[in-house]
Amino acid sequence: MRSLLFAPATKPELVAKLADRGADAVVFDLEDAVPLGAKVTARPQARAGAETLLAQPEGPAVWIRVNAVPTEWFEADVAEAIPRGVAGVVVPKVESGEQVQVVRAALAAAHLAELAIMAGIETAAGVVRADALLAPPVTHAYFGAEDYISDLGGVRTAHNQEVLYARSRVALAARVGGVHALDQVVTDFGDDRRFLADAAEGAMLGYRGKLCIHPAQVTLAHQAFTPSAEDVARARALLAAYEDAAAAGQGAIAFDGQMVDEPLARQARDIVFRAGGD
Amino acid sequence: MRSLLFAPATKPELVAKLADRGADAVVFDLEDAVPLGAKVTARPQARAGAETLLAQPEGPAVWIRVNAVPTEWFEADVAEAIPRGVAGVVVPKVESGEQVQVVRAALAAAHLAELAIMAGIETAAGVVRADALLAPPVTHAYFGAEDYISDLGGVRTAHNQEVLYARSRVALAARVGGVHALDQVVTDFGDDRRFLADAAEGAMLGYRGKLCIHPAQVTLAHQAFTPSAEDVARARALLAAYEDAAAAGQGAIAFDGQMVDEPLARQARDIVFRAGGD
Amino acid sequence: MRSLLFAPATKPELVAKLADRGADAVVFDLEDAVPLGAKVTARPQARAGAETLLAQPEGPAVWIRVNAVPTEWFEADVAEAIPRGVAGVVVPKVESGEQVQVVRAALAAAHLAELAIMAGIETAAGVVRADALLAPPVTHAYFGAEDYISDLGGVRTAHNQEVLYARSRVALAARVGGVHALDQVVTDFGDDRRFLADAAEGAMLGYRGKLCIHPAQVTLAHQAFTPSAEDVARARALLAAYEDAAAAGQGAIAFDGQMVDEPLARQARDIVFRAGGD
Repeated sequence: MRSLLFAPATKPELVAKLADRGADAVVFDLEDAVPLGAKVTARPQARAGAETLLAQPEGPAVWIRVNAVPTEWFEADVAEAIPRGVAGVVVPKVESGEQVQVVRAALAAAHLAELAIMAGIETAAGVVRADALLAPPVTHAYFGAEDYISDLGGVRTAHNQEVLYARSRVALAARVGGVHALDQVVTDFGDDRRFLADAAEGAMLGYRGKLCIHPAQVTLAHQAFTPSAEDVARARALLAAYEDAAAAGQGAIAFDGQMVDEPLARQARDIVFRAGGD
Repeated sequence: MRSLLFAPATKPELVAKLADRGADAVVFDLEDAVPLGAKVTARPQARAGAETLLAQPEGPAVWIRVNAVPTEWFEADVAEAIPRGVAGVVVPKVESGEQVQVVRAALAAAHLAELAIMAGIETAAGVVRADALLAPPVTHAYFGAEDYISDLGGVRTAHNQEVLYARSRVALAARVGGVHALDQVVTDFGDDRRFLADAAEGAMLGYRGKLCIHPAQVTLAHQAFTPSAEDVARARALLAAYEDAAAAGQGAIAFDGQMVDEPLARQARDIVFRAGGD
Repeated sequence: MRSLLFAPATKPELVAKLADRGADAVVFDLEDAVPLGAKVTARPQARAGAETLLAQPEGPAVWIRVNAVPTEWFEADVAEAIPRGVAGVVVPKVESGEQVQVVRAALAAAHLAELAIMAGIETAAGVVRADALLAPPVTHAYFGAEDYISDLGGVRTAHNQEVLYARSRVALAARVGGVHALDQVVTDFGDDRRFLADAAEGAMLGYRGKLCIHPAQVTLAHQAFTPSAEDVARARALLAAYEDAAAAGQGAIAFDGQMVDEPLARQARDIVFRAGGD
């Protein structure tokens, strides 16, 4: 999953278009994109939107983002807004193992125990406990920079230095826990260069894809999280030279000005693999 | 508290001036600013200086920085140098929960149990244990970059990359523990631009104010930790548009090229709040 | 130890040259520099190479890097490849306290219990557990950026932002645990400027030296991890001014535009000490 495209549950007119954008996954949002006065009416809208998408052949995976566990809406969100067939539930602002257990119990009560769980790590407490939270039954996670900085009381900037610590820590915890991690939103939806730069940072830090809040960001996310043709060609050439050397009993070679041994060979294999090669 | 202005306890001639500088708080220092040979005589000087300031109407909050808990001076510092009426005690180089308990006991023995405790996190061990240390009874904290890098055996630079990890971690731990965190000193006291840049970084990372080692830094600290008029105007406009949309049943809007939903609205509310608005 | 020069165990023709390069320590590598097909034959080569170097008067300290504990090669590597007289064993990809105990037991079984243990922290799990791992019986450590990013699934860059979190965390954990930490490899062995910049970052973050994968990097590492003549002269001048002031009862002075008290004096003493001064 390189892209997870958000859509407010309250905008049914968007549903038909969502499937066309090529996102790896789509999420109907009951949380931040829905105002307080519409929380209840948004549930059947999310459900109907999800069912419409699920009925389409070769549509994207569909997720539902419920409101956070401590809110008054969480329980009914899970019980009423999630149709069979969705891939998973997105739970924002996860802060404790107890909350994860509440999610699991609510899914079981709704006969949705098979759903994947994506935890939003986007508060100070969530980041501090990321090592414990990012492990089964949680299977996916995202880092939410806007909410994190708001909760921390910091200032968001375009250079992202204020989130480097938390963004690095969450990606690392996800890797150790076997959790698929998605990188932060870029709210400037018209700025392609910023999105690509931000996504390149995310990829560099170990994220596998990006939250998208505008359809135009989907293509950019796929571009950023798929190795370029040049990268793949270089990786293949490096591996060929490395394997020739190994066959001759050598384990470290000079290639293109670099000392190449197992770690760089592993990086090259990973590039070829992510490009869909063998 | 946006500014905490340090004054060596051994310079009584500075006392009269201290109240005029507009600092939110002033601290008489018995630790790093006092040489070994003057540790004992500095105590009555700190006490007298504090009493003079406390007697002034509308003076700043007054704190005393004692020597670190494991030193031979700590106990008598607390017993002899702190008059009634001070806001709190600053304890440098805090490294363990046991030390915090020693501080609490020493304050109780001196009939000063009501004082706030500010912990200096400025050693490798202090940073590693920040999650545990930055919680009640500790109410305030500062990150001490110079001492931290000295203890770590690193090199201090103007770009602060060598402290980004520790400075981020301490601010985060303080937020989770409900502790008011102050940012590192800028030792180049004549370089206003550097101070402002450094303070902007601190604010970005979640700090609430700055240690000041020169009166001229106080105004700069207040400027850095108070949102600008432009920021406040933009935040108000964003909130007005967001609330209009919510009244119409919409939870996410495009504003000034950004996708705005709850997280950005929260950041805007925080800016208005910190500017003293409603 | 400012430099640890790697040599593949399989290249006996390099051995004679190794002692001339002036490295503080040399390591014969059985791991990443040796291909799968040569793992067994590399053991006597490592042993013979080490013995040759150890027989030289005033040669460098000699280490052996074995394969990681979970591999099929680890046990025989320790039993067969390490002659008496080597300084220590380098264990790559250390991830748990159990692995450290296995290392200790294997050394004891081989009558090598007195050897120093250098742990490679170069996987996601290793970084997350660095606080626990970097303590006795581990005496030395290195941070392996290439392997770490490969394991994390990130992207290596020349600006190192993707490893700033992990590289900072490992140096800090090493300091707290009393472990001598060496900084990451620079694989571009012909780029002196990059090596020096990278080494300056490592020194800034608290590392004591550098892994070297090419003899030309040794001199650069020593240059980077030894204070410059200018730094030493400035440190001595600062200390002289500071000590004069202390003798006059003053603890904080203005020096060269900076407010100098104990933390800056400590940094200056450290510079003089590392330069070999008194």
